[in-house]
Amino acid sequence: MQSLENQIVQSLRVLSIDMIEKSKSGHPGLPMGAAPAVTALYRNHLKFNPTNPNWFNRDRFILSAGHGSALLYSLLHVFGYDLSITDLQQFRQMGSLTPGHPEYKHTVGVDATTGPLGQGIAMGVGMAMTEAHLASLYNRPHYPIVDHYTYLLCGDGCLMEGISYEAASLAGHLQLGKLILLYDSNNISLDGDLDKAFSDDIGARFRSCGWQTLVIEDGNDLEAINNALTLAKTEINKPTIIEVKTVIGYGSPNKAGTSSVHGSPLGASEAELTKKKYNWDLPPFTLPEEVNNLKDLYREQGTQLEADWLQTLNRYYQEYPQLQMEVQAMIKGDLPENWDEALLLYTETHKAMATRDASGNTLNQIAVNLPTIFGGSADLASSNKTMLREAGNFSAANYQGKNIWFGVREFAMGGILNGMALHGGVHPFGGTFFVFSDYLRSAVRSSALMGIPVTYVMTHDSIAVGEDGPTHEPIEQLASFRAMPGLTVIRPADANETAEAYRYAFSQKENPVMLVLSRQNLPILPDSLNKAKNGVAKGGYVLLESKGQTADIILIGTGSEVSLLVEARQVLAEQGIDAAVVSMPSWDLFEKQSDEYKASVLPCNNPRRLACEMGSTFGWQQYIGPNGIVIGIDTFGASAPGYELIKHYGFTVENVVSQSKAIVERARVSNIKGLWINR
Amino acid sequence: MQSLENQIVQSLRVLSIDMIEKSKSGHPGLPMGAAPAVTALYRNHLKFNPTNPNWFNRDRFILSAGHGSALLYSLLHVFGYDLSITDLQQFRQMGSLTPGHPEYKHTVGVDATTGPLGQGIAMGVGMAMTEAHLASLYNRPHYPIVDHYTYLLCGDGCLMEGISYEAASLAGHLQLGKLILLYDSNNISLDGDLDKAFSDDIGARFRSCGWQTLVIEDGNDLEAINNALTLAKTEINKPTIIEVKTVIGYGSPNKAGTSSVHGSPLGASEAELTKKKYNWDLPPFTLPEEVNNLKDLYREQGTQLEADWLQTLNRYYQEYPQLQMEVQAMIKGDLPENWDEALLLYTETHKAMATRDASGNTLNQIAVNLPTIFGGSADLASSNKTMLREAGNFSAANYQGKNIWFGVREFAMGGILNGMALHGGVHPFGGTFFVFSDYLRSAVRSSALMGIPVTYVMTHDSIAVGEDGPTHEPIEQLASFRAMPGLTVIRPADANETAEAYRYAFSQKENPVMLVLSRQNLPILPDSLNKAKNGVAKGGYVLLESKGQTADIILIGTGSEVSLLVEARQVLAEQGIDAAVVSMPSWDLFEKQSDEYKASVLPCNNPRRLACEMGSTFGWQQYIGPNGIVIGIDTFGASAPGYELIKHYGFTVENVVSQSKAIVERARVSNIKGLWINR
Repeated sequence: MQSLENQIVQSLRVLSIDMIEKSKSGHPGLPMGAAPAVTALYRNHLKFNPTNPNWFNRDRFILSAGHGSALLYSLLHVFGYDLSITDLQQFRQMGSLTPGHPEYKHTVGVDATTGPLGQGIAMGVGMAMTEAHLASLYNRPHYPIVDHYTYLLCGDGCLMEGISYEAASLAGHLQLGKLILLYDSNNISLDGDLDKAFSDDIGARFRSCGWQTLVIEDGNDLEAINNALTLAKTEINKPTIIEVKTVIGYGSPNKAGTSSVHGSPLGASEAELTKKKYNWDLPPFTLPEEVNNLKDLYREQGTQLEADWLQTLNRYYQEYPQLQMEVQAMIKGDLPENWDEALLLYTETHKAMATRDASGNTLNQIAVNLPTIFGGSADLASSNKTMLREAGNFSAANYQGKNIWFGVREFAMGGILNGMALHGGVHPFGGTFFVFSDYLRSAVRSSALMGIPVTYVMTHDSIAVGEDGPTHEPIEQLASFRAMPGLTVIRPADANETAEAYRYAFSQKENPVMLVLSRQNLPILPDSLNKAKNGVAKGGYVLLESKGQTADIILIGTGSEVSLLVEARQVLAEQGIDAAVVSMPSWDLFEKQSDEYKASVLPCNNPRRLACEMGSTFGWQQYIGPNGIVIGIDTFGASAPGYELIKHYGFTVENVVSQSKAIVERARVSNIKGLWINR
Repeated sequence: MQSLENQIVQSLRVLSIDMIEKSKSGHPGLPMGAAPAVTALYRNHLKFNPTNPNWFNRDRFILSAGHGSALLYSLLHVFGYDLSITDLQQFRQMGSLTPGHPEYKHTVGVDATTGPLGQGIAMGVGMAMTEAHLASLYNRPHYPIVDHYTYLLCGDGCLMEGISYEAASLAGHLQLGKLILLYDSNNISLDGDLDKAFSDDIGARFRSCGWQTLVIEDGNDLEAINNALTLAKTEINKPTIIEVKTVIGYGSPNKAGTSSVHGSPLGASEAELTKKKYNWDLPPFTLPEEVNNLKDLYREQGTQLEADWLQTLNRYYQEYPQLQMEVQAMIKGDLPENWDEALLLYTETHKAMATRDASGNTLNQIAVNLPTIFGGSADLASSNKTMLREAGNFSAANYQGKNIWFGVREFAMGGILNGMALHGGVHPFGGTFFVFSDYLRSAVRSSALMGIPVTYVMTHDSIAVGEDGPTHEPIEQLASFRAMPGLTVIRPADANETAEAYRYAFSQKENPVMLVLSRQNLPILPDSLNKAKNGVAKGGYVLLESKGQTADIILIGTGSEVSLLVEARQVLAEQGIDAAVVSMPSWDLFEKQSDEYKASVLPCNNPRRLACEMGSTFGWQQYIGPNGIVIGIDTFGASAPGYELIKHYGFTVENVVSQSKAIVERARVSNIKGLWINR
């Protein structure tokens, strides 16, 4: 008779095999190899409540090697989460709760969407940073109301990715002792033997970044894994990596230890042979009674754990009543009612201000009333203006600090921001130059896919960057992010639009927002004090109406180009052309408005349209139609003073006026009528 | 009297200061700190010919910390390259040869465009790999015709970037002994003291990846630097990192050692104080005579070095006449005349084939006659089908192998491919899943910005990926790369278009090409055997004409959706609707065609258009106009069998037919006429 532990291990292996065989698709190798490690973790260490998977003070667990999803789903089922055998049988099928890679929000007990390798590690670092931060802010002697570990499971793939190095380097620097990484070390990757491509001394590498490193020579040795986890938890000044040496596809007589078992089903006969090897004689999707009985045990245990915590929390509220509202809001992720009270707006007479500076002011104004703001920059705080002036630096010596120094680690920053948002309790933001959004693009995609509130602060948003030249000048980045589902992109045109963009961004609970901000000063636009309020949230609005009912031409711009259009409108007026100016800071928000609203901004029967933006023209045709003109940039930038480049690339009043006149004249001659059919 | 070496060091410092002061913009910190290291390198180690900066067998040097460009330009001037004092005086000005960051092709002696941190290191690894590969292929006893080192200079920023870890890990694994990295270690980053964010033990980290590590405690100690470089060159089985401890802004009495000198001019008075400290009393942009005289020396020396090499090469050709043509083509980067002779095309009766499989076949057919093909995959060779079947694995034990195992290191792969193309002598390609193009996006941008021929092989190009789910299903990637200047994106519709896409890609010398390929099988299209030939290179073509002169509707598709349109056309015909089918594999190539050609494919007077593509609809409006319809996907994907997803998202004959009929009917009712004015 096998021990109960071993029965759990075999159950996880067999369930995973059954799921993958049934769906004829999936990755059995990792589940079969790593089942003991996660069994030890869930059975003896992980603090969780399967009846409330989102319990705030639970330990977090991220399967960074997301292709091993069958293992995670099996775990969740065995340990009492609301994920049935029927759900497991629908593995990788349309609409099921058990998709190919774990999806946050989609499946109970999944703490992060994983699959894009390496990102799980960065998200774990973000969670551990958030735990440390909130604990240092809110815990009081005898009241550890925020107190949990963050566990990760990764494979070789995650460790080869640069983001895992970046995140580990920062985690070691910050001495995140409550971060524990289980490394399923099996010497096999998708393409075969790992030694084709990888020969790092992993222990030495992680020690060079300030980690504790432990090794388990036999990945089936549950006791050794248990002891290592205990050691890891005891080391509070260093994150720990536990290298668990495993055999990929353990137990498969003909495929174990080979890449053939990484990403393909075993096949019926090999599955049968493997079960024999496990001494397993139950029908598919059937578990031993002892294992089935565990569900209730873990549900009770989890419920009790949470109840104990709630009791502590209530006593905390009694002892520290002045903290109750704040902590309650923190746990729920709510904004205080007055969170945006300190936001300043500006009249037209205010001096010109770069939107990055307006952003810096706004962040600091938000920080006045929002204690859970938490963020920083990838070594560009002084350029991105992300510094919170009175909030201190987040460091190993001061976890209360709110300014995070991510270092030159853009991609890890993105993953960490995701981890912070996933953890909850904070309102995370992070900044870099817009052109380097390319480095963290996949993390932004993960924010959007998970539907979590991260605010990306992207400054230096055009060729107006100037002297630093084309490597530092975004061109295609706006278009590339506008094309990303689930992401709101806002490029505000002045300080007021910037403040309103933040009001929108920090109010979100279900989606990330990217703010795209100027390096150069921009005037406060006419009446934007009043118009930006609703205008920004609607994505686009008429900043300046035409004099007559139908404009001779509609000038559409975003960001720094709107003030140029305002100037051009004046010159056009002097030449008898009646132009409207539309500010369109966010295409995706605009597209969410009613057809009526959209037509009120861009009348369907007016084909005379000019768009102006210092970036790729790609995508603008949807707003200007086949007869409009976009003044944009479809080449790379250059190195020269910004004002010279702006002129060189045609962003001048003269050019806007002459192109506008060409459109008006052309429409007159061709007698082009209304074009748009609302879709 | 200072030694000549020291005079060179001071000259580089002062020239850099003068350039930055004059332009009122730039980064003096690194030039002032790192001048001795590069002086030692250029004076005593680097093999170069200033009269022929592109000499094939020169040592390569990449300033990975591109913000230190003033140092590089000063170096190039002092060591005899054709870069005058007048050029230096135009630092960071419009049209000058001395832009803010070093730009390949733009300035003599610049071996790579740098600025986006970390990428220079990966490019250096690519160069060293190429050197090792070509040397092992073509060198013969006593004829080291390919024989040079690759040197890099980086700062802390490059080392914090994950790509530097990825590239270093692979370089150590491949035992690239001729790669030498100078690390300007000054403990300061843009945002201040490095210890805010970074505390790696750099030596231990690089040793964990198989590198030799050396440390220079005093960055002004030229002799120590020289000795370290000699040691580095002697170690032929390991790449070497030399940590040179420097003081940022060395010599500035009030700013040295602080972040204020990282990215801003010293200011006139501090510049003056600094020059005093250097005992420098010459006017701005003036060098000591001894230093000025060096130009001729290095020109002569370089000319002689190249002449010696040419002599060796000529004797080599005499001894190995059968290699002459091949080596000459290799050095020039030319294709052999017969390079594409083995390319197979297919008739309609051939069985359906995924374009990734067609890609695999094509690569292997190219390999038959193109000895300089060199590439691989980021641990997805078996999925990307990038394996060259008879070419061996590139490894430390076998540098002749042509299959590169990049590991799960997409971003480094991109940088390495760039380094390979920059080095010359090979035709590089690299593959991953299309969705993970997000990881290497910035490297693709660098390929495009530099205008170098890299072929990116991106497979699994849509939701048809299926079970792996949304993390693995590209949606917005097509749009995001179409928006990138200088990149050709081709999404072929069948095996013939795939072969033609490769014929185009490998013929390029000045631009990168990204191939976007299906996982699922696709039929051979009607007469694509003949039509793809010109059609692909023109970006778009009429695959099937309408029966009448004017089509009732134009169906436009790319990749896997073209065959769907062909089917729909048949059904439409049965219902009396006369449709044309346009295959549009490459938007950017199509846009390069004449207005006449474009109008022949998409007649200006025909507004009845439907586009169909399994990706974001973003950007399609330019081809379908305000009254067309795009069948696309503007959400994320899902996990289910691919054929179910294809149906679920509306990529069915029924849907194409019904949407087409809606367009035709709407146009009839509204009597919409021609729309397009050629721009």
